[in-house]
Parts: sequence; structure tokens; C-alpha cells
Amino acid sequence: MNASEFRRRGKEMVDYVANYLEGIEGRQVYPDVEPGYLRHLIPATAPQEPEKFEDIINDVERIIMPGVTHWHSPYFFAYFPTASSYPAMLADMLCGAIGCIGFSWAASPACTELETVMMDWLGKMLELPEAFLAGKSGEGGGVIQGSASEATLVALLAARTKMIQKLKTTSPELTQAAIMDKLVAYSSDQAHSSVERAGLIGGVRLKAIPSDGNFAMQASALQEALQRDKAAGLIPFFVVVTLGTTSCCSFDNLLEVGPICNKEDLWLHIDAAYAGSAFICQEFRHLLNGVEFADSFNFNPHKWLLVNFDCSAMWVKKRIDLTGAFKLDPVYLKHNHQDSGLITDYRHWQIPLGRRFRSLKMWFVFRMYGVKGLQAYIRKHVQLSHEFESLVRQDPRFEICAEVTLGLVCFRLKGPNRLSKALLERINSVKKIHMVPCHLRDKFVLRFAICSRSVESTHVQLAWEHIRELAGEVLSAEKE
Amino acid sequence: MNASEFRRRGKEMVDYVANYLEGIEGRQVYPDVEPGYLRHLIPATAPQEPEKFEDIINDVERIIMPGVTHWHSPYFFAYFPTASSYPAMLADMLCGAIGCIGFSWAASPACTELETVMMDWLGKMLELPEAFLAGKSGEGGGVIQGSASEATLVALLAARTKMIQKLKTTSPELTQAAIMDKLVAYSSDQAHSSVERAGLIGGVRLKAIPSDGNFAMQASALQEALQRDKAAGLIPFFVVVTLGTTSCCSFDNLLEVGPICNKEDLWLHIDAAYAGSAFICQEFRHLLNGVEFADSFNFNPHKWLLVNFDCSAMWVKKRIDLTGAFKLDPVYLKHNHQDSGLITDYRHWQIPLGRRFRSLKMWFVFRMYGVKGLQAYIRKHVQLSHEFESLVRQDPRFEICAEVTLGLVCFRLKGPNRLSKALLERINSVKKIHMVPCHLRDKFVLRFAICSRSVESTHVQLAWEHIRELAGEVLSAEKE
Repeated sequence: MNASEFRRRGKEMVDYVANYLEGIEGRQVYPDVEPGYLRHLIPATAPQEPEKFEDIINDVERIIMPGVTHWHSPYFFAYFPTASSYPAMLADMLCGAIGCIGFSWAASPACTELETVMMDWLGKMLELPEAFLAGKSGEGGGVIQGSASEATLVALLAARTKMIQKLKTTSPELTQAAIMDKLVAYSSDQAHSSVERAGLIGGVRLKAIPSDGNFAMQASALQEALQRDKAAGLIPFFVVVTLGTTSCCSFDNLLEVGPICNKEDLWLHIDAAYAGSAFICQEFRHLLNGVEFADSFNFNPHKWLLVNFDCSAMWVKKRIDLTGAFKLDPVYLKHNHQDSGLITDYRHWQIPLGRRFRSLKMWFVFRMYGVKGLQAYIRKHVQLSHEFESLVRQDPRFEICAEVTLGLVCFRLKGPNRLSKALLERINSVKKIHMVPCHLRDKFVLRFAICSRSVESTHVQLAWEHIRELAGEVLSAEKE
Repeated sequence: MNASEFRRRGKEMVDYVANYLEGIEGRQVYPDVEPGYLRHLIPATAPQEPEKFEDIINDVERIIMPGVTHWHSPYFFAYFPTASSYPAMLADMLCGAIGCIGFSWAASPACTELETVMMDWLGKMLELPEAFLAGKSGEGGGVIQGSASEATLVALLAARTKMIQKLKTTSPELTQAAIMDKLVAYSSDQAHSSVERAGLIGGVRLKAIPSDGNFAMQASALQEALQRDKAAGLIPFFVVVTLGTTSCCSFDNLLEVGPICNKEDLWLHIDAAYAGSAFICQEFRHLLNGVEFADSFNFNPHKWLLVNFDCSAMWVKKRIDLTGAFKLDPVYLKHNHQDSGLITDYRHWQIPLGRRFRSLKMWFVFRMYGVKGLQAYIRKHVQLSHEFESLVRQDPRFEICAEVTLGLVCFRLKGPNRLSKALLERINSVKKIHMVPCHLRDKFVLRFAICSRSVESTHVQLAWEHIRELAGEVLSAEKE
């Protein structure tokens, strides 16, 4: 395919994309296909000779679309939102064309420098403490990771290296293995599974702190665990505070946990994967209070800030801690004047070596929406979730299971779990809307997450009517 | 921005992309900018109000392009190629529009199933042993990782978990830390730095086996290390064989190293990041002989197979080993009938949770080029590197430093390293072409990598003329 055919096909694809998104409401949100559906629609081997573009684009409707879960349908209320906006898509086209691999400053200076500046822009939108910004000569700064899981892992590895180095200095007789055997990381029992995974990968213990009645980690529970573990000879080194948990969007008590981490010299990482986007709004910024105690902070603009996946924003106060985790010789780093805030080699900040020019998406989105446009977007979603919440509260058959702070409503049918399970099963087999459940303690709960960029009050109202109707069926069946 | 503005701007962007790539030869391959150039061209904070698209696209030329290293310029001979093709860009547009997050089968069945089938297609192109293919009921299969670094890390973690579990079964008194303290991984001293990094992250020793005169790891050297380490009470568990090293594209002796790994029950991972694409050509397939001994195999279609970054192809013989690395309880896995080849949850195969619909790029590229088109592309690049090699060989002032097998030529000025260093410095300050160096033993070496999709014989000839001329200047200056 040469440039002139690309001009033609590219424009057709732009129309296809626009048609898809404009017409997405008309597509069934969750597919009908059975496992293994695709293999028999596709040849067993790649073609030897080139095929025509027409045949491929026709196959998109014939083979791909019937198996797509339409995350951007206004009837998609599952998981958490994943961002989609036209400015981000335009930027991604440009990113693909430039196609540089930005592992070092020299590999494409613009790729590195725009990222640093965009992370400062975003940090300022969140009113992050100055220490997290790169500025012209800061010790901190931001980096785009692929996902919150990677950010948590990178933070844990940095904390692990830092603690091992510290202990080896004070107790040179200790081996790395002896130290790792005693290291303990902590998170709430409501933390995302990727936190447990980071512990597994890093080869260290991770302990789940029991959350309170509001599914939040409190300082007292953490302190209890710290005392017990230290008495048992273990070495606490890392705490993950979650702001906006996956199951019910609860918030750990950062303002109280933070000072303990600082006092005990524990690396404090904040995972605000979903909720972080809301902190650009003044009325939600208080939820981030206490970030000043953290060593690293992460949230996903690719969830709720209109920057298409992947774009997970991570900041650290001391970049040298992060880059040090991937170096054998920390002395080398200390003398590396290049890593000064002026020249950044992002390959030392992350697990992979290669990286795309992802900051273009942030630049396009922030400029084309403006901060006010982004705030309006967040507010609209929060308003829709409260609208849904009040509908649920008006129906005495249902109960709200967790405080609704942002765009997620957790609710269930009162009574035994089998009722809510049956309701969700009906919802997802009728496929008019799509939702996923969670467990809150011993309760089976339905999660209604405001997700799509195009979701409006009418969709929320329709979804609720539909849920009520199916709930009626479930309850009638129960009585028979 | 609504759909109708996207239709307009998207088409403008398609033209911008086509213009950029058609005119890339006219742009200076390496930028003139100094560190920190970009910050003062951009406001210190994001705008409050939306800006116009025209202003943004104008800023691309004003702010971004002056700082871009043009990886797709036909005068770019640095690092290794990174793929760029129009079909992959079209697929990426579609991927952005669908915008699903494919962490599980249910999250978007098409995303998971197309990936499994495309990895089978590609595996068949490489004539991988049947055990690596998913098929309808295989125990193996392929997965798209973000980079070769991630693939190496995932393989190491899987091997670590497997060995720990094995030893805990036979010696229940051993702790995980006691085992990890004795685990040793091996690679050639020519292996990519990401292998060392995987060891660091995984918290295990990694030993570099001295390569031979052709920069290849031989079985004898590995065996020596194994014997010595086992005698010292260490526990070998993981070997990385590199096919096509980063510095000089040398090949470890897989056919001899493989059987040792199998005999000693060591996980064998093959890293063919760059060279792997060439194995779709019959005349290069022999370089992969011995893959049947491996547990995992990885290469990067996003380097040399026209599938834009990121797309790193990884296969394993036993998927359960991979998914087991990220689970606390392997017993659970054994009873998980879902992970049967029919339903795949790729989140268990990788470090991040989220994942894009990257197999669309493979599908578009394989179909629009056909296997023959892809083979022709590889062959053209190899031919160009041999053309450059023969030019170098005709000039008695130069020497070739490593066998030219694929698209990389390592050469230098005869004599002390300062000559070649001075030559490279001139090359990269004139910026007519761009190259990076490597060290082979004590020699400073220039790497000439055939990279761009649009590079032709004329560019190679011009590059050589230019290098010769600059070499003349260096040698004259030396005489003065």
C-alpha cells in the first residue's frame, strides 16, 4: 500500500470510525458469540498473496464486530470507563506516523520533552505538590506508564531497592535474599489485584489490611499490622493507599495513613487509577489531600480523562529512586549528571524499553477540551451516577451498598445474594445493558459505572427501567 | 469535537501523515535541538478554554517536528528498525475506535480470539513446532506483549515460580527466600540489557556467559558455568538464548545449548527480538533450528515485520506455566477448565492488566502484504546490508567486525578506537545520516542498520559516500 492508497483508505477508515461511534447505540452492547467463534471464520494460515483492502474491511463487520464488547456504547456500565475521544484518536494517528521509539532523550527529544511537560500540566491541574513536578530542575517528575499495574510494580521495585540498599549500608552482613525474606508491603483488603501481583513479581510479602465499614483502610489497622510484623522481625517497606477502589470506589484514609508512612520510613504509593481524573475538579480535590505524604502517585487518564488507552500517569518525588531500581550500581546514578531534570531517559522509569509518543494524546486532549471542558465531562458523569443512585433509593426492593462519591453506584436487591445474582444474570443475558458484579464482604453487589462519553440521562433512565423490570421478573420467579 | 468535525480533521490528519511519510527524506534525520528546547515553546499550564484544531496542528510543525528523530527516514541507520506500514496504521485507527480493554475473553471476545489466531498464523509462518500453537486444544499458544523486555521478564518469572514450586514439593522445609537466594539465570555476555534487568526485577542472580570469537554463546561455556555453580550449591533455572544480538546480530548456539537446558531442566527462553522476522524466509529459517528445545520464544514484529509498535510476539509451550507465575495458588489453576485453549484470559499472560486490540494490526498487515510480500521486504533489507558490506570491504581503511547475516553491518576504521569515535561524532553532527555505535570486546564499532521501509540502494550508496568522505577528513586531521 503506497501513500496515495493510504490517503484514500485512511479517509474511508475515518468515516468508518465516525460511523461506528455515531451508531454505537444501535449495536448490542455485549456480543452473542460463544468461545471459539472466530477461528472457523478465518483461514488457518496467513495468505501467501496480498489481499484487497475491501475484503478486509468487509471482514471487520463480518468477523470482528460480532465478537466485540462495545465499551463505548451508552449502555455499557461495566468495569470502569475506558477513555475515548476524537482528539486522542487524531493524536494517535500522528503518533503512529512519527513512529519513534522514545527510550532515551536522543531517540526522539520531542517525545521525551513533551511527556515531561504534559505530566507537569496534568500535575498542576491536580494541584500536586511542587515536589512531584519536573519543572526545569526538579528532583521529581511524571512519566506515562502503560497501566496502573505497571506503576504499582515500578513503585514497589523502587521501594524494595531503596530499602535493601539502606539495610545493606547499616548491616553489611545481610544478603539481599535475607532482607527480601523479611520485607512486607501493605495495602487495604479492597486494593486491586494488581497490588498483590506486584508483590508476587517482586518476591515480597504483601499483607492485606482489613478495611473498615466503609471499605477504607484506617491508620489504626495499619499501625496494628506494623507493630505486629516488626515485633515478629519483619521489615515493613511499602504501603499502597487506594483512592477509589475497584469494587466500590472507596477511599483509604490517606490523611492519617500518610504521616505514619513518613514516620516509619515506608514508601507510600497512591493508586487512584479511576478516581484520579476527578481531582481536577475543585469539589473533589479534597479527596487527594495527603498526597504530600506520598513518594509516588498514579492514576489513569485513559480511564476517565478522555485520553485513549494507554496512558497511565505516574509521578514520583525523587526520580533517582525510580531509576535506581533498574540499575545495578546506584553510585553510577549519583554521578549521572544527565538525569538532571533537563535530560530524561524514560527507559529507566519503566519495565519495557520501548515506548510510543503517548504524550501527543494528552496534548491534543487538554488543548481541545480545555481544563473547563474536562471538568464539565467529569461533573456530568458524577451527576449521572447520583441520578441513578436516587432512582435506586426510591425503590424499596433495592439497597445502595456503598457511598456514591464519583461515577459508580453499588447496589443490590435486598435479601439473599441469589436474588442479585439472578438479576445480573438476566441483565447480561438480555444484553440490553452490560454490567459486572463485585463482592462487598459477604454481599453480592451490582456495579453501575457511568462509562461512555455519549451516555446521557435518558440512557440511565432506560437502564434503570430495564433493571427494575428484570428485578420484578426475578422476584416473581422467586415467589413461585 | 463531534463526529462531523472528526470526519473533517481525521481526513486532514490522514493527508498530514501521508505527506509526512512521503516527504520524510527531505527532513533532517536527527534534530538540532538542545535539551530543554521544548518547555519554553509551550505554556506552563494547560489552557482553561478549548483551543482550535488549526492551532494545534500548526504547533506540530513548530514545536514537535523540530525535536523529532525521524526513525522512518531512509537516512536513519541507527538502533534497529521500528516497523511502519500503512495497513498497520489503518488497523490502529480501528483499534482506537473500538477501544476495548481486552484483559479477559468476556471483556471483548474478538480481541482475545483474533490474537490467538494471529499468533498461530505467525507461528506457522515461522514453522514453529506444533507445541507452541494454541490451535483448538493446545497447551501452548501465543500472546502479544508490549516489548521483548516484558517477554523476557514474564518468562523469567514463570521459570522462577515453576522452580520454586518444584523445590518446595521435594523439600518442603525450604522457604521461598532461601530458594531465591540460590537461583541463577544465564545469558550470553552479548545479551540485551533487558535480560539483566529481568533478573534484577525478579530478584535472582543473572550470570553472563562469555561468548566466543563470533560473539555467540557456546554450549561448553554454559556447561562450565552450570557445573561450577551447582558445585557451589546454586540452583540454575533459566537460560536466555539470543538469536540476533543487539550489538552485532550474532547467534547463540541454540542447537547445542538447547539439549543441555532440557537435560538439566532449565527453562529455555529465546530472545530473537530483531532477527525473528527473518525466519519467515526459508533461507533464514535454519537460524531458528533448535527452537524445539525452548519453553518460550519471542520476537518483535514491531521491529521488522511492518506491524507498528507495539507488537512483541511471544509463544510458550505450556500456557499454564505462564499463567501460574501470576497466581498464588497453582492448584486453583489446575482446576480452571476455562484456560483450556478455548477461553483465554490474556491478563494472566502479562504484567499489565489492560491491553489494546493489537492483533488487528497483524491481521491487516499479514493480509495486505501476504506472506510473499513480507518475505520480499525482509530479503530487500538483507540485500541492502550486503550491498553496504561489500562497499566497506572494498575500502582498505575499514574493517567488517562481525559476520553480516541479516540487516546489520558492524564496521570500523582500522586502527585505534579514537578514529572510529571521531568518525561517528562527525556523522552524527553533520546529521545527513544517523547511526549509533556498539562495543565489541575492546573495539569501538559503528553499526549500520537497514531500518526504513523506504530505504533503497541509492540511500545506501549515498550514505557510504558520505561516510567515506567524513572518514577521509578524520584521517587527514589525524595526520596533521
